[in-house]
Amino acid sequence: MEAGDIQGEMLNKTLVVSAPGKVILHGEHAVVHGKAALAVALNLRTFLRMSPRDDGKIFLQLPNIGVKLWWDLVQLQPLLDAFPDRTELKPPTPEQLARLKEFAGTADGPGEIHDVATVAFLYLYLSIAAKSGVLPSVELLVWSELPTGAGLGSSAAYSVCLAAALLSECSVVGYPLGEGQSLARWTEEELDVINKWAFQGEQVIHGNPSGVDNAVGTWGGALRYQSGKITPLKRVPTLRILLTNTKVPRSTKALVAGVREKLLKFPAIMEPVLISIDAISRECEGVLEAMADDSSQGHYSVLEELVDINQHHLDVIGVGHPALDRVCQATAALGLHSKLTGAGGGGCAITLLRPDTPPSVVETAVRDLSRCGFACWETDIGGPGVCAHALPSLKADVVKVLNGI
Amino acid sequence: MEAGDIQGEMLNKTLVVSAPGKVILHGEHAVVHGKAALAVALNLRTFLRMSPRDDGKIFLQLPNIGVKLWWDLVQLQPLLDAFPDRTELKPPTPEQLARLKEFAGTADGPGEIHDVATVAFLYLYLSIAAKSGVLPSVELLVWSELPTGAGLGSSAAYSVCLAAALLSECSVVGYPLGEGQSLARWTEEELDVINKWAFQGEQVIHGNPSGVDNAVGTWGGALRYQSGKITPLKRVPTLRILLTNTKVPRSTKALVAGVREKLLKFPAIMEPVLISIDAISRECEGVLEAMADDSSQGHYSVLEELVDINQHHLDVIGVGHPALDRVCQATAALGLHSKLTGAGGGGCAITLLRPDTPPSVVETAVRDLSRCGFACWETDIGGPGVCAHALPSLKADVVKVLNGI
Repeated sequence: MEAGDIQGEMLNKTLVVSAPGKVILHGEHAVVHGKAALAVALNLRTFLRMSPRDDGKIFLQLPNIGVKLWWDLVQLQPLLDAFPDRTELKPPTPEQLARLKEFAGTADGPGEIHDVATVAFLYLYLSIAAKSGVLPSVELLVWSELPTGAGLGSSAAYSVCLAAALLSECSVVGYPLGEGQSLARWTEEELDVINKWAFQGEQVIHGNPSGVDNAVGTWGGALRYQSGKITPLKRVPTLRILLTNTKVPRSTKALVAGVREKLLKFPAIMEPVLISIDAISRECEGVLEAMADDSSQGHYSVLEELVDINQHHLDVIGVGHPALDRVCQATAALGLHSKLTGAGGGGCAITLLRPDTPPSVVETAVRDLSRCGFACWETDIGGPGVCAHALPSLKADVVKVLNGI
Repeated sequence: MEAGDIQGEMLNKTLVVSAPGKVILHGEHAVVHGKAALAVALNLRTFLRMSPRDDGKIFLQLPNIGVKLWWDLVQLQPLLDAFPDRTELKPPTPEQLARLKEFAGTADGPGEIHDVATVAFLYLYLSIAAKSGVLPSVELLVWSELPTGAGLGSSAAYSVCLAAALLSECSVVGYPLGEGQSLARWTEEELDVINKWAFQGEQVIHGNPSGVDNAVGTWGGALRYQSGKITPLKRVPTLRILLTNTKVPRSTKALVAGVREKLLKFPAIMEPVLISIDAISRECEGVLEAMADDSSQGHYSVLEELVDINQHHLDVIGVGHPALDRVCQATAALGLHSKLTGAGGGGCAITLLRPDTPPSVVETAVRDLSRCGFACWETDIGGPGVCAHALPSLKADVVKVLNGI
């Protein structure tokens, strides 16, 4: 394919898409040992704006992490050799990644976040170009409400946004937003395509991801993950939460190893705890599906009880942390229920809020948690996956960022 | 038998005996559902002094609860009709208890502690008199370091002391303390007799006790209790602890019912927790027996870990309390490990101390816990059961009380 050989059709208009982050509601760590986990969409979103250019250039701007790069299409052209158009999607090969790293000048880097993000973009851009025969001249700006490296699926949200925008631009999927609409979603079939490409991005970034994060970023809502199998829940309510980042750094690898060690040391004590966590995930799944029909207070009580029980179990398997205890205590003092989410040992916690939790209580919680030095967001879980937006319909601060101001 | 008909032999000297309280180390609540529990002797002891009189009177003094009573032997004589000498011990009959309550003037009472203690004394005195044919004129003073009604086996320690003293006085068992000895214990066979009679006293007080408390009071050390079966551990170390009484009142019955409710509500989540608690008791049993040979620090780490895990489990099954959380936090801040013991929902907690825990740490813990309004004792667990003492060998404050000063 030559630079001028536009085989496919280009959308040639400004696209705005967003994808949510994810939190693990229940089942972190137990999932490593074959138990079920529940992952839910976190309504802290990553936003992407992509506009056509007419100068044969590609601009990539990632203001969260200080990336501002551009390339000429003629520079990218030779890289297409490495991307034969395959009907079946296959994982990125080491050769492809080596070639892209060399091109991006990141070959010797320590895999820093902006290098990884750049390579993932190039990978998706070139693969989709190869697939569609379209090599669009565009400028992209991707900005996220999600903190990076906090286990909240920020890389997947990035990959989902890139996949949705590039696949739409190259007409592999349609762009769902009609005239006068403020928000639209892709069809189930199109979401399936977007998810598969987003998983490619995740593979570039993480090597061997589970696919949970991009699935949540694509479909939103909630899904069960067990032994490699992802099952979206049919209907889930949107639940208000506080997300708290204790900012205590942790090593997921060390925490997972610690749990394994405890299991080996006290198998008769620890294995039942994993079985109980598995049952919590299943019970929660049932409650969430029941809530779609009936949002009575009783369901919230059960959700709160499950959160408390699982937090104790996570302490038992050794992934608690005094900072997480502080989150639990500070929120318990206000009648709220919290648990760690993700790897634990620090990191993030979620606090359930009820539909009628008064703003004053939430404000007090946020104030108390901030005083502990934690970052705190009031948001919700179980919301929509990847969406197309009319730019003016977004919150003013997001519009400002996407307009590059 | 007539008042003057002394068939048996009387010891006719001053006896001093003591028996320990008990704490549940692991397995409280789980034991209700067929799992194992570990009960250990608590070295807060009940002391009894019994001296012969020559005026045909019986004096009973229980300074902890304000009992100061006396009877003439001729008054007691008619009650013996209700106590045929049986070879086989049988539970107290309603008729016997009604008769004793009427005699003691407690028939209409609400079962207050001093009434129950009086009836239990009369029951043991008269049964042992009937059995031995001895109706001694004595004065008894029983005083305890144990708080009453705190689940620490104070009633069993009382029953064990009464049984040991009365059985010795009436020569049903020998009195083991030789000339010049400061402390002595009964033979295994004699302890078996003392335990059986102490269980009678417990039946008078509690109706349908498990027999665990009097077994611990008699044998000391530690024992496993499961499905009605009591198995003493062969060898156990003596462990330093802090015992903390939060003084938060609780209803054991309501707490047991609450656990049952949770089990019915979330069987798949809760049953594994009970299985894990069972495994903790067994693991702990193994560690305690191993420690008798090898008191390495590693064993203490495991004991501490088990305490932490079980405390979380007890929270999960719903028998925690903010006051117990405060005990755990205050001691954790000093590197110590605590759990509730007994019914939970308030009540008592134990904190493990190592042999080398510095006095300054213990003092700080006691100070911090006292500031929370809790009562706190430094003592140990796993020590000896019922003992005979030479009065002067006891601590001065105990001697003072036993001398009625």
